[in-house]
Amino acid sequence: MPDDDAHLIETCLSGQDLVRSDFLTLRRDTVCLPSGGQASREYLIHPGAAAVVPVMELQGGALQLVLERQYRYPVGRTIIEFPAGKLAPGERAFDCARRELREETGYTAGQWARAGQLHPTVAYSTEVIDIWFARDLTQGARQLDPGEHLDVFTATPAQLLAWCRDGTVTDAKTLAAALWLQQWMMGHWTLDWRTDEYWAAAGEQRQESTP
Amino acid sequence: MPDDDAHLIETCLSGQDLVRSDFLTLRRDTVCLPSGGQASREYLIHPGAAAVVPVMELQGGALQLVLERQYRYPVGRTIIEFPAGKLAPGERAFDCARRELREETGYTAGQWARAGQLHPTVAYSTEVIDIWFARDLTQGARQLDPGEHLDVFTATPAQLLAWCRDGTVTDAKTLAAALWLQQWMMGHWTLDWRTDEYWAAAGEQRQESTP
Repeated sequence: MPDDDAHLIETCLSGQDLVRSDFLTLRRDTVCLPSGGQASREYLIHPGAAAVVPVMELQGGALQLVLERQYRYPVGRTIIEFPAGKLAPGERAFDCARRELREETGYTAGQWARAGQLHPTVAYSTEVIDIWFARDLTQGARQLDPGEHLDVFTATPAQLLAWCRDGTVTDAKTLAAALWLQQWMMGHWTLDWRTDEYWAAAGEQRQESTP
Repeated sequence: MPDDDAHLIETCLSGQDLVRSDFLTLRRDTVCLPSGGQASREYLIHPGAAAVVPVMELQGGALQLVLERQYRYPVGRTIIEFPAGKLAPGERAFDCARRELREETGYTAGQWARAGQLHPTVAYSTEVIDIWFARDLTQGARQLDPGEHLDVFTATPAQLLAWCRDGTVTDAKTLAAALWLQQWMMGHWTLDWRTDEYWAAAGEQRQESTP
């Protein structure tokens, strides 16, 4: 495999927004291919998102996960997923994770760990999702957006993994989080847990991922 | 948790295509919310896709995976991913998996197993990706589309999992496939291997996932 990316990289020659709505911007760029030709690339501009794996530790050490069940109109079905949402303008990924957990489930967390990042659709969206783990949970009242309808429920890691296997769980961020959960529970991957106050004060800035 | 989905389901009242290009269709529907109000849903119509986990079995039983490295313009970086591609009109997921493996890597496979399905972006795309495993590989010549530039290389499952942990791999379908790979290698999840001829003759039809 070659040492660098020069033979793969595409560079922008020109571009225009095809649609710009309240929800999303669709863009078309003309790019220069590494071979010298040109091609069109159409993609959505997305602000980025954060997803949360909320872990409750029961007496005896058993774990319970907080999950959501929500009708997702584009795929025409109810989807089981971890709490998640889009970054508000200027919002950091941690602040988004904390806000979405509180708004959608009512929970606040005493400890947080940043797991990894996920690109759901590299072919046609700039979206990147930060995956966070949350524990030391305290229940409060949830504050759903107008028009937002979702169930909150708990399941064991074994239940979640069974649902990933049998096709009950098909959501990309939830499958990626299940990989992290499985590896963390086996002791193969470590999570760097810090207090809520640590992350709130940290200068953690979202890394740029758009062209 | 309630027994059924009636309190979650959104139904279409009207809709229109906002953009229809060679690459994609962006649509906006007005939906009736379960609470009785109305909302807008904007989403991409996607034909669906198939991804392949190509497994080479070395002498002694060690496994090597065939992977790709490709510049993904929307996210502005080179991405490591399993071979994958969109369904052609009327194409079945297995036929797409077989075609993409051959075109992008040159490999054909004697045996295939269907792992699961993945919805990369439930909020704004109808896309569903079928994940297939392929083994008993034979190398041939690849046939890239015009303007397609990608490197093909091999890695061990341990290398892939290390890259999932350290952020080198962020592609959603590849992370979901890594969960399947890990569970299969541990003997927790089983794959129902069948010959290429079996799947080619099977009446396997893609399940509808659009509203």
